[in-house]
Amino acid sequence: MAQPVTIALDAMGGDLGAEMVLPGAGIALERRPDIRYLIFGEEPVVRPILARFPKVAAASTFIHCDVTVRMEDKPSQALRSGRRVSSMWRAIEAVKKREADVAVSAGNTGALMAMSKFCLRTLAGIERPAIAGLWPTMRGESVVLDIGATIGADAQQLIDFAMMGGAMARALLDIERPTVGLLNIGVEEVKGLDEIKTAGRLLKEAGLTSLDYIGFVEGDDIGKGTADVIVTEGFTGNIALKTAEGTARQISSYLRAAMGRSLSARIGYLFARGAFRQLREKLDPRRSNGGVFLGLDGIVIKSHGGTDGEGFANAVEVGYSMVRNGLLAKIAQDLAVYHRAGFVAAAAEPSADAESSMTGVK
Amino acid sequence: MAQPVTIALDAMGGDLGAEMVLPGAGIALERRPDIRYLIFGEEPVVRPILARFPKVAAASTFIHCDVTVRMEDKPSQALRSGRRVSSMWRAIEAVKKREADVAVSAGNTGALMAMSKFCLRTLAGIERPAIAGLWPTMRGESVVLDIGATIGADAQQLIDFAMMGGAMARALLDIERPTVGLLNIGVEEVKGLDEIKTAGRLLKEAGLTSLDYIGFVEGDDIGKGTADVIVTEGFTGNIALKTAEGTARQISSYLRAAMGRSLSARIGYLFARGAFRQLREKLDPRRSNGGVFLGLDGIVIKSHGGTDGEGFANAVEVGYSMVRNGLLAKIAQDLAVYHRAGFVAAAAEPSADAESSMTGVK
Repeated sequence: MAQPVTIALDAMGGDLGAEMVLPGAGIALERRPDIRYLIFGEEPVVRPILARFPKVAAASTFIHCDVTVRMEDKPSQALRSGRRVSSMWRAIEAVKKREADVAVSAGNTGALMAMSKFCLRTLAGIERPAIAGLWPTMRGESVVLDIGATIGADAQQLIDFAMMGGAMARALLDIERPTVGLLNIGVEEVKGLDEIKTAGRLLKEAGLTSLDYIGFVEGDDIGKGTADVIVTEGFTGNIALKTAEGTARQISSYLRAAMGRSLSARIGYLFARGAFRQLREKLDPRRSNGGVFLGLDGIVIKSHGGTDGEGFANAVEVGYSMVRNGLLAKIAQDLAVYHRAGFVAAAAEPSADAESSMTGVK
Repeated sequence: MAQPVTIALDAMGGDLGAEMVLPGAGIALERRPDIRYLIFGEEPVVRPILARFPKVAAASTFIHCDVTVRMEDKPSQALRSGRRVSSMWRAIEAVKKREADVAVSAGNTGALMAMSKFCLRTLAGIERPAIAGLWPTMRGESVVLDIGATIGADAQQLIDFAMMGGAMARALLDIERPTVGLLNIGVEEVKGLDEIKTAGRLLKEAGLTSLDYIGFVEGDDIGKGTADVIVTEGFTGNIALKTAEGTARQISSYLRAAMGRSLSARIGYLFARGAFRQLREKLDPRRSNGGVFLGLDGIVIKSHGGTDGEGFANAVEVGYSMVRNGLLAKIAQDLAVYHRAGFVAAAAEPSADAESSMTGVK
């Protein structure tokens, strides 16, 4: 059997902290017995809960930390008070020291990203990390990034996202040469922001072997699964993700209301309850829990703060798969090929077409 | 009885042109018998179809136009070849000449906006028009703008959108003082783009009587109906709209698949088919067809190009309601109050908080 995968857990993150993290660690361990945990947190809080999960305890090393980053801390504040001493920092640091293969936290996203950047640094050739999510689609799953690391991205950063997302799709979805689309407001080449147009032109010209650039895609292409990887900057990606989550909840509530409105609908519901259970599972947001920080010299996974043990276990499993499938090596390989080709967007000529308004009238 | 509402129709717009527009006009006339139409289009195409709809013909004046703007024309191209002579232009021009109260077209969005700006001009004090849509929510309907007129918006433009969207909500949703939210990536005040933060601060300080500014909202708040009016710039608005449409289609397809998978699910479907019909109606995109161009000295409604007669009829009805409820007067009134107060964002101090990255780390 291969080496176990060592996962550093921030036991204090999330709305419920260790009461959610440790049960989640137990569920993931059940599914992946070759996981070992390094658990970071406040001893008086974590020890009694850990005692209730003997299997997790047996597969873990516990490390006490004095400080907990709070969900409402600003990133700068978290760095000031939590650097070197908080459970969040120490989990990330375990990855840096190669004591763990991946860190998982359900804590404050801004703080986790700030600490990850500070501790792990970005990969050579990458200016800015991104958060990538797995998005359920009509054809399976797609990688969508950036879903909220940073607002805005220039052409070079979008190209970096395309390459890193492609590597993640190869690692996680087992696709040889993933298709990649740039999220835009129209598929015609004249539309959209200049940086997206430039990134599109350069990706087309580059003819990368690691990914298959298919052009611009629109918002409804995400759910269709038109591309294995959807690339956008963090503001738009976050709005798209939350809008889709909101729409799914909205439709579920319509469906519940419709099924309770008449006697025959309620009878129908009883006959079809297996089908409804399948649908609920399909729409369960816990199934796609686990945002992957890409572009850092180490793997960090962000779990939703409000999830439960089942959701947290999924985030742990995403981390596990990233390690087992060699995500970092795949990214490094793609970047090396790309940089050897001397292919850098910044040096390229700007597009001749300067039409930036959607209507073409200034 | 009040004066009839005169609606100028571009009979050539949309994927099916007059074959979709005229049946749609018939459905709308059935529901609103006090509509009169001015129908613009190519005589050899439109006349034979109009002959099949005698009620529409009886309520209409037909005006032949030599030129048709094509769906694939660029806005600049459409303006060059279609100005003064196309059915699209002439429908808009009828609004300018006060021969019609509103124009409705299912043609090319970019061309329609370009021609509308050129012909009708923006209202005094408004720099840039927006396209507003009615978005079905868990609590009813909300106005969302800009869903695709222009990429980007500064603080002043976002404030203009807030006021115009508020006026539309008062006109269409019959709400005295609509709640307004600015679409952002987090509800905390430190987050988001500078222009959104500035617009938020100024809207809060302004204490407008025509609307109730409730702060930042996130993508999932749109479907929840957290605010009556959701304000964003055209790129994000368009991505959010299309993403929601894609998610709705995706869930419908999951549901269909689940209901066909087993015998008992199929039996359940038979019992609950009334409920499923209600759900389908609720999710029918034709129900929310009709984007309203706001900020122009006249009302123009954009119908989806791919809709059918039923959907087009809804766009016509949106235009009808805008006229009957005095949208333009409401917008003019709000703008006058606002400008009398000498409240202009451009003159305001920039926010002291310059943290533009979501993680706070540059």
